[in-house]
Amino acid sequence: MSVKTAYIELDTKGECEMHDLTSQIQEHIKASGIGDGIVSVSLIGSTGGISTIEFEDGLRRDIKELLDRLVPKWYYHHDAAWGDSNAHAHLRSTLMGTSQSFPFKEGKLLTGTWQQIVFIDFDNRPRQRKIVVQMMGE
Amino acid sequence: MSVKTAYIELDTKGECEMHDLTSQIQEHIKASGIGDGIVSVSLIGSTGGISTIEFEDGLRRDIKELLDRLVPKWYYHHDAAWGDSNAHAHLRSTLMGTSQSFPFKEGKLLTGTWQQIVFIDFDNRPRQRKIVVQMMGE
Amino acid sequence: MSVKTAYIELDTKGECEMHDLTSQIQEHIKASGIGDGIVSVSLIGSTGGISTIEFEDGLRRDIKELLDRLVPKWYYHHDAAWGDSNAHAHLRSTLMGTSQSFPFKEGKLLTGTWQQIVFIDFDNRPRQRKIVVQMMGE
Repeated sequence: MSVKTAYIELDTKGECEMHDLTSQIQEHIKASGIGDGIVSVSLIGSTGGISTIEFEDGLRRDIKELLDRLVPKWYYHHDAAWGDSNAHAHLRSTLMGTSQSFPFKEGKLLTGTWQQIVFIDFDNRPRQRKIVVQMMGE
Repeated sequence: MSVKTAYIELDTKGECEMHDLTSQIQEHIKASGIGDGIVSVSLIGSTGGISTIEFEDGLRRDIKELLDRLVPKWYYHHDAAWGDSNAHAHLRSTLMGTSQSFPFKEGKLLTGTWQQIVFIDFDNRPRQRKIVVQMMGE
Repeated sequence: MSVKTAYIELDTKGECEMHDLTSQIQEHIKASGIGDGIVSVSLIGSTGGISTIEFEDGLRRDIKELLDRLVPKWYYHHDAAWGDSNAHAHLRSTLMGTSQSFPFKEGKLLTGTWQQIVFIDFDNRPRQRKIVVQMMGE
């Protein structure tokens, strides 16, 4: 049994820009030498989300439009207090979650063909992002 | 410390059909021989969700009606591109998450009496589903 | 490799009262003597949520107002069946999730400065709450 910690660094434009992390996570699993276990994928930050989706252009537009409707950019108390106008990004992040764990076996992620692990940046400005990819297993 | 990987296979009708996985997960934990650890419960697929709920008829209807309201079946870009009319199922899945992990101790899930671990199938057609149940611990 | 299980006990007033668990989780990690690994933070119960947020007054009000809008207190089938009028709390809990796992390294949580791990109590009455904090790693 061992634990290996790796990182994915990204430049994003925000505004629900979505990044497919699947192949990089898969490479980190291979490089860890761990056969069976869990990979924790976790954003360092509070204005993005980690989830799975079929990574294609239609759904990328749909998820942005859905979140613009459910958690719109409008007046929030956070913005009034801090003047940074990204409260909607914090709220979307809390709803979706910033961390999710996935099982792998014989060095391969146990996810579906049309199921990519993604990072979505909800912030309203370009950011440099760091995502923890931690493998644990045997 | 060891890792054991098991699977739950299900036939579902979709349309927010909900399945209580708790007793099957509990049996897999017992069978693993692992006393204390984490069980990762993870759907292979991108049109369902894994979460916890009090498993009773009222809430099963409530969650469907809530999702029909928040993420309705209507026009989405994904459907326009692929013609499969299940974009709402993908979006619900991304919001809820397809994977969640739960701690157990002395072979028993540390969940509440009214808290069942469930799979909800958001797709718009019957499916055969495979859910990974991976135990890790000592 | 080892597994250590700890608990956080809380008295809450419900109605979206939010508790910052970060420093207590960090202390449990230190006390476990585990350097690198995953901490699973998991509510025992089905009417609260575990997530991350920037813990400040504005966002605490915003998340309550957002959930009051998305998953309002109104008529639900669960309440009609059981007469306990907290169906909205169950539904918010299922959407947000009751369990989330976070990586740590050299005894320190790999979370951001403005990213606190929180418990939100969605129930409509005061509760005593128990949250599992389970560390696994080496």
